[in-house]
Amino acid sequence: MSTTASEPAGTRRRIAEAADALFYQRGFEKTSFADIAEQVNLSRGNFYYHFKTKDEILAAVIALRAAKTQAMLDGWTEGARTPVDRLCRFAEMMVRNRKDILRYGCPVGTLCAELAKLEHPAQGDASMIFGQFRSWLREQFEALGHAEDADGLAMHLLSRSQGIAALASAFHDEGFIRHEVTLIEAWLQSMQRKARPTKARQAKTQG
Amino acid sequence: MSTTASEPAGTRRRIAEAADALFYQRGFEKTSFADIAEQVNLSRGNFYYHFKTKDEILAAVIALRAAKTQAMLDGWTEGARTPVDRLCRFAEMMVRNRKDILRYGCPVGTLCAELAKLEHPAQGDASMIFGQFRSWLREQFEALGHAEDADGLAMHLLSRSQGIAALASAFHDEGFIRHEVTLIEAWLQSMQRKARPTKARQAKTQG
Repeated sequence: MSTTASEPAGTRRRIAEAADALFYQRGFEKTSFADIAEQVNLSRGNFYYHFKTKDEILAAVIALRAAKTQAMLDGWTEGARTPVDRLCRFAEMMVRNRKDILRYGCPVGTLCAELAKLEHPAQGDASMIFGQFRSWLREQFEALGHAEDADGLAMHLLSRSQGIAALASAFHDEGFIRHEVTLIEAWLQSMQRKARPTKARQAKTQG
Repeated sequence: MSTTASEPAGTRRRIAEAADALFYQRGFEKTSFADIAEQVNLSRGNFYYHFKTKDEILAAVIALRAAKTQAMLDGWTEGARTPVDRLCRFAEMMVRNRKDILRYGCPVGTLCAELAKLEHPAQGDASMIFGQFRSWLREQFEALGHAEDADGLAMHLLSRSQGIAALASAFHDEGFIRHEVTLIEAWLQSMQRKARPTKARQAKTQG
C-alpha cells in the first residue's frame, strides 16, 4: 500500500506513463480518457482527481517525455567520450528502438505531426522535445569544431533520423534503418577525420 | 447543371477531393462524414449514395492521390531531360509545397503514420504512394549510372524529403526546407559529375 503522501504523485505518473504509450501507439486523437483509465485500472473518480481533461494529460505526457529525453541525452554526454561517439549514440537509438519505430514511427515526430493537424495549442511544447535533441546535437557539432554551422548540422542529422523513421515504418523495413544508420555513422566519422586527423583514427575508419 | 450521366462520377470525385484535403489538414481520424459532406454541400442521403463508410472514402482518397502522383511523376519525366534534372524536380517539390508542408507536413508521410497507429487495413495501400515515388526515383538513379544501388539511393532521397517535411513543420522553418533542398541538389549534381563528367557541367557546378 502506498502512503497518502506519495500515492497521488505515483498515480499521476502512472497515468502519464500509460497515456504516453497509448498516444504513441494509437495517436492522441484516437486515445480516450477511458482507454487510459483502463490501462491504469482506476475508477473514473480517482482518474478525474488527477486529470480533468485530455489536454492536461497531454501536458503531463510532454513533460514526462521531456524529462526522459533530458536524462537520455545526459547519459550519452556522460557515457561517450568524444563528440562523434556521442552523435553515434543518437544514431544508434534508431537501431535500438527499431521494433517500435517499425510499428509506430518516431514518438516525437508523429506527435508533433498530429498536433499540427489538430492545430493543438500544445504543438509548440511537443516541438520543444525536438528542440532538446537539436540543442544537444548542436553542442556535439560545436565540440567537433563546427561552431559556424553546428545548428544546421544538428537539424540535418535530426532530419535524417525523422526520414528514416517515417520510411522504415511505411515499408516495415528494418534493414533500411540499419543501412541509413551506417551511412550516418560513416558521415560522422568522416567529419571527425576532417576536424582533427590522427593517424590512428584515419587507419581505423578508412576502407 | 450536370447531366445525369456525368453527375454521379463528378460528385464522387468532389467528395474524394474534399476528403483528401481534410485528411491532410486535420487527419483521417479527426475528420468526420459530416465534415466532408459539409465541404461538398451534399445531403446525407446523396452522400451515402456514393460512400457508405469512411474507409470507402479513404480508399477513394488513396486512389485519387495515386493517380495525381503518377501524373506528376510522368510530368517530371517528360518535362526534364536529364536524370539529375528530374531528381531535382522531386527536391523542388518541397520548396513549391512549402506553405502546406509547414502547416501539415507531407501528405503521404503523415497519412501513413496515422494509419500505422490505427492499425488500419489501408496502410499498405497508402504506403504504395511512397512506392510510386520510390520506383520513379530508382529509375532516375539507374539512368544516372547507379544500377546497383539505385533502390538504396531512391530510399535515401525519399527519406531525406520526409525528414525535411517533419522538421520544417515542427519548427515552422521555411529556411530549413530551402537549405536542405540546396544540399540535396548539390549532392545530385555531384553524382552527375561522378557518373559522366563533362567540362561544361563541371565548370557550372563547381565553386
